[in-house]
Amino acid sequence: MMAGGRSLEKIAATCIITLCLACLHVTSLKSQLFTRVGGLRYTTERPISYKTLYFDQKIDHFGFLQDGTFKQRYLVADKHWHQPDGPVLFYTGNEGDITWFCNNTGFMWEIAGQLGAMLVFAEHRYYGESLPFGQESYSDSKHLNYLTSEQALADFAVLIENLKSTVPGAQNSPVIAIGGSYGGMLSAWFRMKYPNVVVGALAASAPIWQFPDMVPCGDFYKIVTQDFAKSGNNCDRNIRRSWKAINNVSSSASGLQWMSEEFSLCSPLKNKNDAVTFKSWLQETWVNLAMVDYPYEANFLQPLPRWPIQVVCKYLGFDSTVSDHQLLHGVAQAAKVYYNYTGSSPCLNISQTATSSLGALGWFFQACTEMVMPMCTDGVQDMFEPEQWNFQAFSDECNSIFGVRPRADWAGTVYGGKKIGSHSNIIFSNGGLDPWSAGGVTSNITQSLVSILIPDGAHHLDLRYSNNLDPPSVRAARALELKYFQKWIRQAQKSTGTGSTISKKRKNSP
Amino acid sequence: MMAGGRSLEKIAATCIITLCLACLHVTSLKSQLFTRVGGLRYTTERPISYKTLYFDQKIDHFGFLQDGTFKQRYLVADKHWHQPDGPVLFYTGNEGDITWFCNNTGFMWEIAGQLGAMLVFAEHRYYGESLPFGQESYSDSKHLNYLTSEQALADFAVLIENLKSTVPGAQNSPVIAIGGSYGGMLSAWFRMKYPNVVVGALAASAPIWQFPDMVPCGDFYKIVTQDFAKSGNNCDRNIRRSWKAINNVSSSASGLQWMSEEFSLCSPLKNKNDAVTFKSWLQETWVNLAMVDYPYEANFLQPLPRWPIQVVCKYLGFDSTVSDHQLLHGVAQAAKVYYNYTGSSPCLNISQTATSSLGALGWFFQACTEMVMPMCTDGVQDMFEPEQWNFQAFSDECNSIFGVRPRADWAGTVYGGKKIGSHSNIIFSNGGLDPWSAGGVTSNITQSLVSILIPDGAHHLDLRYSNNLDPPSVRAARALELKYFQKWIRQAQKSTGTGSTISKKRKNSP
Repeated sequence: MMAGGRSLEKIAATCIITLCLACLHVTSLKSQLFTRVGGLRYTTERPISYKTLYFDQKIDHFGFLQDGTFKQRYLVADKHWHQPDGPVLFYTGNEGDITWFCNNTGFMWEIAGQLGAMLVFAEHRYYGESLPFGQESYSDSKHLNYLTSEQALADFAVLIENLKSTVPGAQNSPVIAIGGSYGGMLSAWFRMKYPNVVVGALAASAPIWQFPDMVPCGDFYKIVTQDFAKSGNNCDRNIRRSWKAINNVSSSASGLQWMSEEFSLCSPLKNKNDAVTFKSWLQETWVNLAMVDYPYEANFLQPLPRWPIQVVCKYLGFDSTVSDHQLLHGVAQAAKVYYNYTGSSPCLNISQTATSSLGALGWFFQACTEMVMPMCTDGVQDMFEPEQWNFQAFSDECNSIFGVRPRADWAGTVYGGKKIGSHSNIIFSNGGLDPWSAGGVTSNITQSLVSILIPDGAHHLDLRYSNNLDPPSVRAARALELKYFQKWIRQAQKSTGTGSTISKKRKNSP
Repeated sequence: MMAGGRSLEKIAATCIITLCLACLHVTSLKSQLFTRVGGLRYTTERPISYKTLYFDQKIDHFGFLQDGTFKQRYLVADKHWHQPDGPVLFYTGNEGDITWFCNNTGFMWEIAGQLGAMLVFAEHRYYGESLPFGQESYSDSKHLNYLTSEQALADFAVLIENLKSTVPGAQNSPVIAIGGSYGGMLSAWFRMKYPNVVVGALAASAPIWQFPDMVPCGDFYKIVTQDFAKSGNNCDRNIRRSWKAINNVSSSASGLQWMSEEFSLCSPLKNKNDAVTFKSWLQETWVNLAMVDYPYEANFLQPLPRWPIQVVCKYLGFDSTVSDHQLLHGVAQAAKVYYNYTGSSPCLNISQTATSSLGALGWFFQACTEMVMPMCTDGVQDMFEPEQWNFQAFSDECNSIFGVRPRADWAGTVYGGKKIGSHSNIIFSNGGLDPWSAGGVTSNITQSLVSILIPDGAHHLDLRYSNNLDPPSVRAARALELKYFQKWIRQAQKSTGTGSTISKKRKNSP
């Protein structure tokens, strides 16, 4: 690794924290970083089996000077595949290690048999093992230059075209794109930009409209707040009060010490800056809880009880007479539901959600280039400290860290923004509890650009393994998604003259 | 200009000729170069008026390290524009100076009034005045790296989005993309990739399928041959015979001298290599004639009579008893129809169609990267010397000249190849006489991806000014194109709630 690279990594890792310390106004970058990193900590719930393969992918699909290639990792499970012409379910990898997504997208594994489908999970460039320049991929902005969603989509397209031409029996296989969160955005965009490659897409919890001038910047945090409001008496109100209580208590050294002990922090708070970081950490804790407010025990960022916000809110039911110290005692208990449900954490680390893993740094760069997602809070319609969206400040931060500036309008221009009605065969599923639904497509656009709402669902609940405690809404969502898949597959087989009947006829012919 | 740049330009200018001398097997590159360059030599037929404007365009839309901008030239004529919400007809510039296209796309000028349309002609990057790095744009492959169709389409999209947000009354204006030849390919691809930006596209004489494994490589030259076959007795047969006659006669110094005099060549042929260049030049002459075989006098590459191939064929009606010298005398007379119709050319220059202008060099680079268009001849179904398509030789040539290698499959992957049925609102018009129709869409794909055939038409005749001698087929084509435009505009106005009736209502309200 180059010296320069090492130093940028250090800078960036520091800057993630610095950003929280120094630039509290840059709400969106914080939330994108923290929440998305959190989303990666899935664990395997079932034993599954797949092959790990690598494909020589062009580093630059949109220029010819850089003609180098890198090894893109992809995973294949073809046990249930109905050869020839059986469908392929293609997971469009997000900002992380593809094996995490593979292990935790149970829906695909559960429907593979029924569809006679091959499963393919393609890793997103610059994440996991798919590093265009190996260990130097993150060494500087020059090496990071090929980390864009357009390049990732081109990777997926080229990979699929290659599989179709090299895997016996796959030539006419209809391919369906599936993804969640940023991966869901990629699935939707993939169908929009490469309808020649995929016959349809399931975009689960995909905030394709969380871009400038598409949705109100405050909706994300409003939904977080609503999740808490409906999970216990006064729950949101007491969180709203807590910020001032923290400010009050942290104004003295003894107050800082008390808070550090109350929250069992690994590193005691020492000054006002620490208190600002502490508040950011708490804010992200509540956001993460909103994303993973699942109806059953699950292990994401942390092991959590079923309906974790309800459990959290049990500690936050105070009326308005509560003192600052009483309130913060409750907040501490609530935070420990999230960070220490199993009782095995000796202390709480307020830099815990801010990891310097490749995934975080990569998403940080993407947020600083294309993925400009305005967020804001007003403290009235949400339970957070007021903070406006400030694009210029955000841009300046990005420039100081990476030497690049975000392009606010580009995502809307290249991916169509609200004007996507001419596309087809995309399912946008959203959970009513998921703050990312604020930027999602939550009503039908056309007969084949459909919205599926899961009122009791958090972040892409539908992609997870089925569970006895699943609410009927997610069961219905999965059933409907499967029906659409079957419809798209039939459509495709009709147009290519393949399908089971025709396949059988072929087998009978000499 | 950098020294290195100068030298590459010299090399490339030489290489265009060298390619013909040394690499006769690389048929496609030759024909792309020569025919397309020829197509640019339009002249103004009517006095028209427009504003010349410049837009700060990102040099790289697909990476963020290169954040520089360049001035993209575009021309605007809004005399007939019905403000607000009147449509915009947007010409997607080809590989040349945009004023040429503006001056010679009479169809747009003729329908602007009827549609109440604003006309915009956008120059393609790296051509005309729209040079990303000024005089250094062609200095080396590094500077040429941003010359791709994807970047050009992104330029068009960003420009239109900017016009909509800055030109009063344009916010809801439906935009229709129009282009011919490579510009027509861009129009079609623009609608496919940015349906949020344009409501439809007219892709005139756009060979979107002239890519590997999409159409037979020999069809292009077959059509050229058919044009000659039906324009005079034995016409194609005698051209087919002429190559051997040239070989025979050019085998001696006296023969070379005789030919040089017979063809009134500016520089006499001196050796076998010159004879090879001579044959390439003749071949391209016949191709150019096929492209501009218009039913009225017109001035393209050269001033030409109406139905020029019929005039040419008057000199090529020999039966099989003709001697080599007699035959070549006829060929010389035929060539002079093309090169000296007005009688003002003192001599014929066999490097004349091989210009070192930016347009030629730019298209050369594009052919060496994305625009891989296989062509071949067999001498049986066409009237040319047999020559197979040899991708490897082509790639090696490109590598030796530009240090880049073409990607044979990329255009098909990124633009869909034959699998474009899910798109909408594209008219593919093709002339039956035009060799480029071999790679065009010549039958309806769906109800809104339609083909318009103009049996008596050469290269994008429909885009030219109307003429008293226009055949009924091109009149019908233009009328139908206009109807589709009106339909798309109505559809768009319906979806945005604009349109003339609603506009009037608005004007009446306080």
